[in-house]
Amino acid sequence: MSRIEPRTFRGARDFLPAEMIRREGLFAYLREVFQRHGFAPIETPAIEYLEVLLGKYGSEGEKLIYPLAYKGGTTAALRYDLTVPLARVVAQYRDLPRPFKRYQMQPVWRADTPTIHQGRYREFYQCDADIVGEASPLADAEILSMIGEVIAGLGVGNFTVRVNHRAVLEGMVGAAGLPPEANRAVLRAIDKFDKVGLAGVEKELEKEGIEDMPRSKLLDLLALPSGGREAILALADRWSGEPRIGEGAAELLRIWQALEQISPDLGRFQFCLTLARGLDYYTGAVFESFIDDLPHMGSLSGGGRYDDLVGVFSEESLPAVGTTIGLDRIFSALEQLGQAGGTPTRTQVMVLQFGPESEGPALRTLRRLRQSGLRAEVWYRPERLGKQIQQADKRGVPLVLFQGPDEAAAGIWTLKVLTSGEQIQIPEADLEARVRALATP
Amino acid sequence: MSRIEPRTFRGARDFLPAEMIRREGLFAYLREVFQRHGFAPIETPAIEYLEVLLGKYGSEGEKLIYPLAYKGGTTAALRYDLTVPLARVVAQYRDLPRPFKRYQMQPVWRADTPTIHQGRYREFYQCDADIVGEASPLADAEILSMIGEVIAGLGVGNFTVRVNHRAVLEGMVGAAGLPPEANRAVLRAIDKFDKVGLAGVEKELEKEGIEDMPRSKLLDLLALPSGGREAILALADRWSGEPRIGEGAAELLRIWQALEQISPDLGRFQFCLTLARGLDYYTGAVFESFIDDLPHMGSLSGGGRYDDLVGVFSEESLPAVGTTIGLDRIFSALEQLGQAGGTPTRTQVMVLQFGPESEGPALRTLRRLRQSGLRAEVWYRPERLGKQIQQADKRGVPLVLFQGPDEAAAGIWTLKVLTSGEQIQIPEADLEARVRALATP
Repeated sequence: MSRIEPRTFRGARDFLPAEMIRREGLFAYLREVFQRHGFAPIETPAIEYLEVLLGKYGSEGEKLIYPLAYKGGTTAALRYDLTVPLARVVAQYRDLPRPFKRYQMQPVWRADTPTIHQGRYREFYQCDADIVGEASPLADAEILSMIGEVIAGLGVGNFTVRVNHRAVLEGMVGAAGLPPEANRAVLRAIDKFDKVGLAGVEKELEKEGIEDMPRSKLLDLLALPSGGREAILALADRWSGEPRIGEGAAELLRIWQALEQISPDLGRFQFCLTLARGLDYYTGAVFESFIDDLPHMGSLSGGGRYDDLVGVFSEESLPAVGTTIGLDRIFSALEQLGQAGGTPTRTQVMVLQFGPESEGPALRTLRRLRQSGLRAEVWYRPERLGKQIQQADKRGVPLVLFQGPDEAAAGIWTLKVLTSGEQIQIPEADLEARVRALATP
Repeated sequence: MSRIEPRTFRGARDFLPAEMIRREGLFAYLREVFQRHGFAPIETPAIEYLEVLLGKYGSEGEKLIYPLAYKGGTTAALRYDLTVPLARVVAQYRDLPRPFKRYQMQPVWRADTPTIHQGRYREFYQCDADIVGEASPLADAEILSMIGEVIAGLGVGNFTVRVNHRAVLEGMVGAAGLPPEANRAVLRAIDKFDKVGLAGVEKELEKEGIEDMPRSKLLDLLALPSGGREAILALADRWSGEPRIGEGAAELLRIWQALEQISPDLGRFQFCLTLARGLDYYTGAVFESFIDDLPHMGSLSGGGRYDDLVGVFSEESLPAVGTTIGLDRIFSALEQLGQAGGTPTRTQVMVLQFGPESEGPALRTLRRLRQSGLRAEVWYRPERLGKQIQQADKRGVPLVLFQGPDEAAAGIWTLKVLTSGEQIQIPEADLEARVRALATP
């Protein structure tokens, strides 16, 4: 075989141990929070029939679907997100409980031109939690409360979860004197607020062909203050004549009423008129979360209510609400805030070989340490002790254990703490307990 | 949008909650055993450049590589296994520690005609553990010892790990008077032993064109007894004139010597001449494990030493040894042995709503339970209590908690244990502690 250059597929990533250990920690944490909130896991295949995926993501999104070539034809593709597969699953398995609360953490693929410095990848994980089959605003509140608890536990400082409602946004379009056909163009313009600000949204509205009068009315509305329950009440008060605004505000108030009881992070939730969310399929509340100290990073999570998506696969239409949590954004935030930490190994102790005749005792000790539940390694070769210690240190193992001939005769081991250089003599019988007392958790 | 039939891609699977909870449990268990043995996690992308994958799996395997269609060209494909990506990673990242001990649990894809009743899928998980950069037989012993601990902890009863060595097999070919060119054909025939027995291997050898005399010599050899150290010694003794047999036996004895110290399951390992392993790339020890009570199920794990694979991507050749553990086989074994268990939810308690005015207290209680670490849900609607209890029971939630108006006035909740029907009155202040005492872990 001729030599092949080892290269990672462009736009995809290898996760090496230090990063994977952090990722596994985050996955375990998310699983714990999801399960504490009564969500159950599912997984779906990477490959879906093309017809399942088409017609869901808008024309721009659809171009990014990654098709598979199989025996000359293309009938299947890699999944684009986790929401459409969930809708398929709920329509396909009729005996799933309802409401169906599921979480799912799997990669998705986009046939995009990767711009890695902006964090756009062709392959990346999504992490979704959704409640399907429940129209009650309690379900919206539960998703929101869970997002709050997820972010609060990350240790990224203060954060804000912005909440809006599609009915409020559509009511604003009406209040500005525009027909419902203008909804999509206006939402598209508002969706850019985070990047371009209010002046930028004005330009976008102009580009979309919205005339002076309705444009300035929309800008007036968008300038209304964000806030909690009182901000929603102020909006409803001022626009009591617009039924869609009243409808959206009433549902937001019901969500807030539940949040006030259920969420330990009530102060983090803000009703915010400038939040729109790009996707077509939302029908009710929409929300995104942001880290206060990283205002330019973009949202950590985004979601909302989408009551019509399951109906694409089923005669029965099922209301649904959910969120996607951006794992890559979380890691990026932890790194920017100096919270990433991370070690390339979880090994607690390495047993060294003093000489060829020490292989037996070293392996027996290794076995004892492992059987007591400690994470332990052995250095495979009876090399110079200094070299073995250096290797353990280089890979981040905090403790080493060895036994010279005199110690062997006396039934004693030496434990060296590599961070401090301290050396401790331990009688053979106490090995597990003494190592455990000094080991990282 | 017209209605689309919800269908899972043929040869792939949806994992619904009951199954996913079992799978997450198994993944967590495997991670724990791997880390206890000093292995660190990595992940690689689903998509690899085609040139990385080609020329590694033999002509039959290569046909099953799943290419992607992108902008008219095909330069990338889905990964076929986890071993070739590992070889790429080790060649690509020169500063990884050596020996590099890694585990990896990710799906792989085969563009196969799926025969699901035989457990052949187009998409399935592999779970690999390998040591790269270490030629010492201690590394082989460590992989073997870890396989033993993985299987012993599964609760599938007695098991056997069969071990052989490619040098022994090649030495047998020489001892039978055949040239080295016959190695591949003979190994291919022996590899079928599990399915066809000794008589079947004889037929296969005949088909491969091996003549009477060498064939009967090979069959004599294959009939030698399996066993531990003494079986290896017996072979080495009888064939001391065949240097390849002596070489292989000496390395196996070194592996056994380490196993005797390191493994709590020594009795499970058997030197076995009829084990060959299909893949071309093995160069030393080869091994497979079997459950004694399920003799027809095939192997739970398979692996061996492959010292030349990394050299395909790098000027530096690195010795390597590792194993793949078959997750689907493990689940199938647990099911056949009635050990699969499984619940569709991990929720410990569901809070019910007695009436519309109980939403506030129900949500506040929910919040308290969750903040104490309990996995808790609320039923979203103040429906008839009987219906709510039925729903909790149907989804496998073992405890429900509710409060009627009189109880609310007295500051008391009722906890009902759904498995026994028992009802207990609990003062509000003791809720967390009392629920925890009765909750599943």
